[in-house]
Amino acid sequence: MTMFAKRMEHVTGSAIRELFKLLGDPEIISFGGGNPAKESFPVDTVRALCDELLAREGSVLLQYGATEGYGRYLDAYIGYLAQEKGICAQRSNVLATTGSMQGIDLICKAFLDPGDAVLVESPAFLGALQTFNLSQAKLVPVPMDAEGVMTDALEELMREWRPKLFYCIPTFQNPTGKTLGVERRKRVAELAAKYDVIVAEDDPYCELRYRGEALPPIKAFDESDHVILLNSFSKTLSPGLRVGAAMGSAPIIRKLTICKQSADTHTANITQAIAAEFMLQGLMKPHLESIRPMYLERMNAMLDAAHRYFPRECALTNPDGGLFIWGEMPEGTDMLALFNRAVKERGVAFIPGEHFYCREELGKHTLRLNFSSEPVERIARGMEALGGLLAECL
Amino acid sequence: MTMFAKRMEHVTGSAIRELFKLLGDPEIISFGGGNPAKESFPVDTVRALCDELLAREGSVLLQYGATEGYGRYLDAYIGYLAQEKGICAQRSNVLATTGSMQGIDLICKAFLDPGDAVLVESPAFLGALQTFNLSQAKLVPVPMDAEGVMTDALEELMREWRPKLFYCIPTFQNPTGKTLGVERRKRVAELAAKYDVIVAEDDPYCELRYRGEALPPIKAFDESDHVILLNSFSKTLSPGLRVGAAMGSAPIIRKLTICKQSADTHTANITQAIAAEFMLQGLMKPHLESIRPMYLERMNAMLDAAHRYFPRECALTNPDGGLFIWGEMPEGTDMLALFNRAVKERGVAFIPGEHFYCREELGKHTLRLNFSSEPVERIARGMEALGGLLAECL
Repeated sequence: MTMFAKRMEHVTGSAIRELFKLLGDPEIISFGGGNPAKESFPVDTVRALCDELLAREGSVLLQYGATEGYGRYLDAYIGYLAQEKGICAQRSNVLATTGSMQGIDLICKAFLDPGDAVLVESPAFLGALQTFNLSQAKLVPVPMDAEGVMTDALEELMREWRPKLFYCIPTFQNPTGKTLGVERRKRVAELAAKYDVIVAEDDPYCELRYRGEALPPIKAFDESDHVILLNSFSKTLSPGLRVGAAMGSAPIIRKLTICKQSADTHTANITQAIAAEFMLQGLMKPHLESIRPMYLERMNAMLDAAHRYFPRECALTNPDGGLFIWGEMPEGTDMLALFNRAVKERGVAFIPGEHFYCREELGKHTLRLNFSSEPVERIARGMEALGGLLAECL
Repeated sequence: MTMFAKRMEHVTGSAIRELFKLLGDPEIISFGGGNPAKESFPVDTVRALCDELLAREGSVLLQYGATEGYGRYLDAYIGYLAQEKGICAQRSNVLATTGSMQGIDLICKAFLDPGDAVLVESPAFLGALQTFNLSQAKLVPVPMDAEGVMTDALEELMREWRPKLFYCIPTFQNPTGKTLGVERRKRVAELAAKYDVIVAEDDPYCELRYRGEALPPIKAFDESDHVILLNSFSKTLSPGLRVGAAMGSAPIIRKLTICKQSADTHTANITQAIAAEFMLQGLMKPHLESIRPMYLERMNAMLDAAHRYFPRECALTNPDGGLFIWGEMPEGTDMLALFNRAVKERGVAFIPGEHFYCREELGKHTLRLNFSSEPVERIARGMEALGGLLAECL
């Protein structure tokens, strides 16, 4: 019967998205998701903007748009890059994407042949791993310490593997919450130039900083046009709108645009227009200021509860922002087995960390905790329940 | 410097989308586009639905959604298939797509390895040709007569090439406007089963019928689960919303869903919700009834003007619906050269037909005329200008 393509052979769907479906029960306290808090969405503002936009230019928004993106959106994004990141971009350097995920997919299409080596953080964002697997890439893990990927190891692996691509989330990484230090960011840009490796810098969490100073993206150090910066409105405005953007050299953006023509023609105009107005009307900054305290409170509630209820043998990261805390239990612990017990016996969910590794034998003793989706009181309760279970299995 | 993937080598971007950019001048009468008439968009209705939806379930619509699609949208689409097409589908048989274009892209991902043969109508939809080229498929043209693809030739080519896929637009085809006869539809379904070929049945124009009886889709004759039906709201409601759907067997839809996870996670919720309400509140039928007369009037204006002003040597199709009329000049005419003269000297644009062929030597004497984007008076004027030029070069 039906012969699917070779790339489908070992791909079974996102483990996390499948787990999500089991977590529909509202009784279960879930640290398993990666969703922004539903309380964070500026529903009334989006509603007013939608109405304003459709009244003003409805028949333009409902018509086909350019693959490159809706003009006001691209200009607003260029303004954001200049103001917030000190990055100078022209229209030819930017592309609207249907969420940041599409940026990763377009980069795979434009750059990867089957068998090409791709370096990824270890652990890495699961969705990206799946996309690279569908591209039949050879995934090579780059070790991390508390400050993110170790650049000496990165250089060795670049020399050894001659990869096409290095994919990373330098700020409040998914799944670890770690942030790559500024000197390492410079070094990544240098290594990309030296070894002619494209860097896909995925930066969806950078605006969710709760303490400390913002760091420049790797792109800010990129003098050789090897870095493609991916931004997203999923963690700041709304993931349901599916709006992101890619920024890079004009020849690279041109190839990504050609790939996007074939992928979905263009991103929905109305969703781009909403994001554009959100930026241009100065609504983003006050919105971010209104949601950060809630996330900080939840993160602190989780860290406090971990301190109180988790066994000391479980080492946790202590992020400055983002949505995730990462835990490492002693080697030998099987967090996948524990996941089932946690859900069934304790009514609490997390993501077993092994899903974030590109090699099967890695990370069985690790877990990812999301603090954005539950109120403070349930975070404390869930962490107490989970801590008890972790202590039991030591 | 940067090494792009092999698939990018011979791909230069959609010729049509590049031509579009030249046609910004409002003085030029354009038969070159494929856009629905801007007058056809139900702006006020969409505005009201948006407002209603965001008030009712704003925080759900702004949150991440399921890759499979927004529930009410899927159910509305299932209802449409049952009522309008006599096709019985479950949730596991349908997938929301970011426009019908994404459906083609997902089918390529799920089924095609480099070098796989894909049969296409000759001429075929340009966007699909580009997507197949990016998939490094071997494209094989299937000849057409007035009733669409010739199924005897189709069988021969299936036997000879053992293709993975046959892609077609059976109703009011882009670019020819031709409609595949009902017996041939049955035959395509039989051949797909006999030769184990997946049929991608792209059906974006079926609701734009201006005369004659609706025909069942090939999918209605598919007893062996070889047909994937692609539907779209781009030609009925709005292309700018980027909402379409794929329907097929559960195992196929599952694979397409996995590919979509990596492509854009999910289609924007709000755009799916608008399309859902449009169907569920019974707004589609009156809307279609309101736009068909305008399109029929424009099509007739174009056919009348062709009769009056075009040389008899130019054979034109006489469609029952859709957006396009196809012309064939005597062999030896170079319509690409004529295109430049038409735009510059006569202020009228069309698409040179060779862009719709998968082999370079084909179709140089053909042209595609779109009648949906210009008012009747300008259609008559543009056809007179173009007819004069065509007569000159005989």
